Amino acid sequence: MPELADLAPLLLQKERATATFDVATCINLVLGSKEWQGRMDHLRGLVMEDPVLNDRDMIYRNHKERYEFALAKSNAFVKLLQKHSITKPDEQQFIYYLLGEPLPIDVHRSMFIPTLETQMDEEQRAYWVPLAREAKILGAYAQTELGHGSNVQGIETTAVYDPATQEFVLHSPTLTSRKWWPGGLGKTANHAVVHARLTLDGKDRGVQAFLVPLRDPKTHTPLPGIDVGDIGPKIGFQSVDNGYCAFTNVRIPRRNMLMRFAKVLPNGEFVKPPSDRLVYFTMVRVRVFITYVCYRYMSFVVTIATRFSAARLQGFAPGSKGKVEVPVLSYENQQLTLFPLIALSYGAMFTSRRLQGIYDTMLSQLGGSMDASTCPFTCCIMIFGVFLDKLDLLNQLHATSSGLKALLTTEVGDGMERARRACGGHGFSASSNIPHLMQEFIGACTYEGTFDVLVQQHGASLLKRLAKPGPAQPNSAMDLFSFLRADATAKCAATTPAQLLEPDVLLRAFQVRALKALQHAARNRASMHGITRASMGHAESVFLQCFFDGVIAITDGPLRAVMLQLWQLYALWRITLHLGEFRADDYLSATQATWVQEALLALLPQIRPNAIALVDGFGLTDFELNSAIGRYDGDVYRALIARAANEPLNRTDVVDGYHKYLQPILASKL
Amino acid sequence: MPELADLAPLLLQKERATATFDVATCINLVLGSKEWQGRMDHLRGLVMEDPVLNDRDMIYRNHKERYEFALAKSNAFVKLLQKHSITKPDEQQFIYYLLGEPLPIDVHRSMFIPTLETQMDEEQRAYWVPLAREAKILGAYAQTELGHGSNVQGIETTAVYDPATQEFVLHSPTLTSRKWWPGGLGKTANHAVVHARLTLDGKDRGVQAFLVPLRDPKTHTPLPGIDVGDIGPKIGFQSVDNGYCAFTNVRIPRRNMLMRFAKVLPNGEFVKPPSDRLVYFTMVRVRVFITYVCYRYMSFVVTIATRFSAARLQGFAPGSKGKVEVPVLSYENQQLTLFPLIALSYGAMFTSRRLQGIYDTMLSQLGGSMDASTCPFTCCIMIFGVFLDKLDLLNQLHATSSGLKALLTTEVGDGMERARRACGGHGFSASSNIPHLMQEFIGACTYEGTFDVLVQQHGASLLKRLAKPGPAQPNSAMDLFSFLRADATAKCAATTPAQLLEPDVLLRAFQVRALKALQHAARNRASMHGITRASMGHAESVFLQCFFDGVIAITDGPLRAVMLQLWQLYALWRITLHLGEFRADDYLSATQATWVQEALLALLPQIRPNAIALVDGFGLTDFELNSAIGRYDGDVYRALIARAANEPLNRTDVVDGYHKYLQPILASKL
Repeated sequence: MPELADLAPLLLQKERATATFDVATCINLVLGSKEWQGRMDHLRGLVMEDPVLNDRDMIYRNHKERYEFALAKSNAFVKLLQKHSITKPDEQQFIYYLLGEPLPIDVHRSMFIPTLETQMDEEQRAYWVPLAREAKILGAYAQTELGHGSNVQGIETTAVYDPATQEFVLHSPTLTSRKWWPGGLGKTANHAVVHARLTLDGKDRGVQAFLVPLRDPKTHTPLPGIDVGDIGPKIGFQSVDNGYCAFTNVRIPRRNMLMRFAKVLPNGEFVKPPSDRLVYFTMVRVRVFITYVCYRYMSFVVTIATRFSAARLQGFAPGSKGKVEVPVLSYENQQLTLFPLIALSYGAMFTSRRLQGIYDTMLSQLGGSMDASTCPFTCCIMIFGVFLDKLDLLNQLHATSSGLKALLTTEVGDGMERARRACGGHGFSASSNIPHLMQEFIGACTYEGTFDVLVQQHGASLLKRLAKPGPAQPNSAMDLFSFLRADATAKCAATTPAQLLEPDVLLRAFQVRALKALQHAARNRASMHGITRASMGHAESVFLQCFFDGVIAITDGPLRAVMLQLWQLYALWRITLHLGEFRADDYLSATQATWVQEALLALLPQIRPNAIALVDGFGLTDFELNSAIGRYDGDVYRALIARAANEPLNRTDVVDGYHKYLQPILASKL
Repeated sequence: MPELADLAPLLLQKERATATFDVATCINLVLGSKEWQGRMDHLRGLVMEDPVLNDRDMIYRNHKERYEFALAKSNAFVKLLQKHSITKPDEQQFIYYLLGEPLPIDVHRSMFIPTLETQMDEEQRAYWVPLAREAKILGAYAQTELGHGSNVQGIETTAVYDPATQEFVLHSPTLTSRKWWPGGLGKTANHAVVHARLTLDGKDRGVQAFLVPLRDPKTHTPLPGIDVGDIGPKIGFQSVDNGYCAFTNVRIPRRNMLMRFAKVLPNGEFVKPPSDRLVYFTMVRVRVFITYVCYRYMSFVVTIATRFSAARLQGFAPGSKGKVEVPVLSYENQQLTLFPLIALSYGAMFTSRRLQGIYDTMLSQLGGSMDASTCPFTCCIMIFGVFLDKLDLLNQLHATSSGLKALLTTEVGDGMERARRACGGHGFSASSNIPHLMQEFIGACTYEGTFDVLVQQHGASLLKRLAKPGPAQPNSAMDLFSFLRADATAKCAATTPAQLLEPDVLLRAFQVRALKALQHAARNRASMHGITRASMGHAESVFLQCFFDGVIAITDGPLRAVMLQLWQLYALWRITLHLGEFRADDYLSATQATWVQEALLALLPQIRPNAIALVDGFGLTDFELNSAIGRYDGDVYRALIARAANEPLNRTDVVDGYHKYLQPILASKL
């Protein structure tokens, strides 16, 4: 028998041989056209050849070193785009992802420029946007403060208009009013869009946005009245200078207020914005985008963990009595940990596409002509004023995307950690890359709305709908609230175990569970927990529906069959996790509940032959995964040894501190 | 109204004023005698005055820097003990904990020395133990290999005896046989206890332990045939040099095998050990110790999160209509996240004490006279040979502590992350110290047996017991298997919602659930998932019982009353989380299930007035918590600002890379 290190690749090959579908077909489904895949290969090649951009040594660096290296990467990134004339947003985005860590110019690209574009008036845009696009200025987006995150209405920074000089005076009146968290604010940006409470002639005019110069354009030193810096290390985003900024009576010209909607005239007169709904649109787009991020990170981690589980021999499964150890993937618990996470990844992919599709359809209905592939914040130009009659769909999408953001970030965050633990000690090691991926993802559980804020928004919207359902959307694919028409008094109709695998039976169970939870919440309005269950019940029902619709639309028979198993597995798994809810009012009987459990376990060995093919189907390369234990070829042990050789401590046989610190200990008594 | 930064401390004071019990009484329960508390204060003062040991800058360092600074800390730690003649193990341990990160000499203290003491024969001990105690040698404990972790029988390193020279030849025959993970092995240790498969005259004699010199005692350079180094960064333990080591035909004298039990005579004859059970004893002790670690870390994190939630104003709770924001702790979801984790902490404390008590009682029954306060590995000397008739209790404790280790590390790991998310963005920041605490703890989910290995051990033992129950333990406090005598056909007897709060009703529900799960597993032996549920069901039942017994033993009435509420909350919470299991065969009816949910939510406002007092009751100091947002005085915002000022990036206004990397971008087109 070959030794373990040589056996591991053979084990992965063996797993691949048992697949019942064509992996390339799956990759086409996930990545898109062959032409685009070829383009990706080309762009990836450029990055892998670039001595700065191909860097993967982030795990050896502290926050300061990560940030400093990310400056070099920013520089190299911009130069690469220029050198190869890469101007398409999706191509730029693809390259950016390949870097494996966010850059300090991230917010400049994804939020600062779009905010100028969408919230400045024409004259302002003509002046500022080219400066930002050509990076003559580098910007941050300064909304969150030390004292207030999710509740924007609590912002304390003030902007008082001085008609005498036609200037705004930006000021941080309290300790907690300093801006806190904005990416790139600490050390990188020389300008920021600052959200502050506007006061005109003593009157509160709400939170408005202002463009504030922070640093001298030549020397980069902070301007007078600006106290700016980095807030220190975090779990993730160590390569970014999340910053703080306090203002001491900083004066900016009147025209530095972003005046597309609200305006202040020279004499100090206030012109109200026609509606506050615009901010809604931006939020929806961001939340839809985050479902994509969830798909992305989950697919990375579950690819790593599943491949490792197939290549890793350890112990003997219950029942197996041979002398040969079995792959960890042969353990039922390992399958029950990983297979639902493979399903979660594909489900998040389909759900993200559905939401994006609804968003784009809505925009096009409204006469907008936005490029869907640009950043999540470039939206809602041109459409203002015409969409107020389309609010129903916007409200549905806003509510549902809020609930799905809460659900999926939680599920993916928790799922990554379960997958990590399923890799034992090697999942604890940075060489697996799972720690890094988790650290970069996990902020999504709290940024752009914490779980509790989102489920309340979602739940409140559902409660309104329950009271006043409104007409069904004519296009069923866009009808996110169809569960309201379920029968909450029904019982599950399955009379045999096999019927519990039927899509209709499963989808209906989730709809009824959601509707029951919502009705319960309506009867107990003071209970936030009840609202939370209604929100999660609905989000899960929508997820299951989007996932299912994605599966049945697959034209390739063998792939569709496997994906359907995966979908069934996911549905049954969710039922067992929340079995109490599905058993409310005995919707599922005690007997049906045991069928669910049995059906779930019975699916595991059916999916097993396709497990590796399913993660291969995400089409992720070794360069992107950057994992010693998640390699395509399964050569995990040599890769782990090669990684350890790179550890800076191994550059010398004897560490510097030995003679100073260890030897004196050796000569003393412990 | 005062500004937010000044309001935060007042909010905490207000919370403290509503407590219905005396916090000092709780602290006495947790920490022990006033005398010991005074001693702790004194020792803490010594550490806080020491310029190296009071260091808290670990968050700014990468792995190499963490390790190098930990060498300095090791040195300062030893010197402090010497200077103040601190020799008592519990005092040394207390100081060690105060350092806030493990040191490279950790394994030398906790595993290397105890292994020499317990597994060497008298002559060997006389020679080696003083060398180790006086740190003339520094050791590692090298068991785990690259290819094998939890399955010790898979170890590949070989030790072949050469009678001609009376030496063992240690060798790493494969890539995967290299030792991998041992703490201190990479750069610190100059010796290691190495586990290798012994071959005598071509015969396999099982895995034995050998003392192997690794580095030159003077120059510290690796000896010939030794390839040793650090395995690289990890999620936690960055201050420790977890290492690898490969052997190329390394010869050691015959007497370097640890020969207390198994022996090899000069002519190569093998003397078998009288039993293999000893390793059991060590494992039990370690697993009991880990329940203490769980209590410790959970109490740290929930103290931080609960205090922050009381000091943090944000938004408006459902129903509240004022203009004044409410503390996050006023949200039902926040309470439902944090209060069960306060309960988990106290429950883990009581459970850990119970297990330790059983362990100590067992030892004393066996005629041992071990000091319970020494490290978890100094055990089982003196008792060998007399405990075989006490195996029943040992088996119970071994099985139960395995299940509890799996349960509690999972619950605490997950609970820490939930508590972190409940702190929003500030929980993502290193200033909260939650990230550091999580990183240092989370390894416990996989080290010393992964979840899946432990539940199988535990479950297998339970299945044996189900088939052959054996007599009840005469002392009910030591009877960990009492659930076997429950009535699995019974239904829950509660006929009113109030009855669901009765301890008997709750305890019985957990016993029946465990027994049902075990019976189910017995009928479906091939299902690892079924065994897992049996294991977790039993572990949870034991946890609830230990927690309850700890609560009713409290003599102070007001404290006992609050702790009982906390216990009820925890029991009800666990039922709602696994409601499907408690509803199996309709043990709980649909109506009873709704009562459980309602009773749980009804307890939250009852516990709320005591929430801060309950976390104060853990008696943790600000120095230990090391958290800007978890401070006793609630002055969280000033603390956050002070932390940010320490960030190394803030030492200069303009970062070094600006002119090299940013300016060229500013002059180019993005």
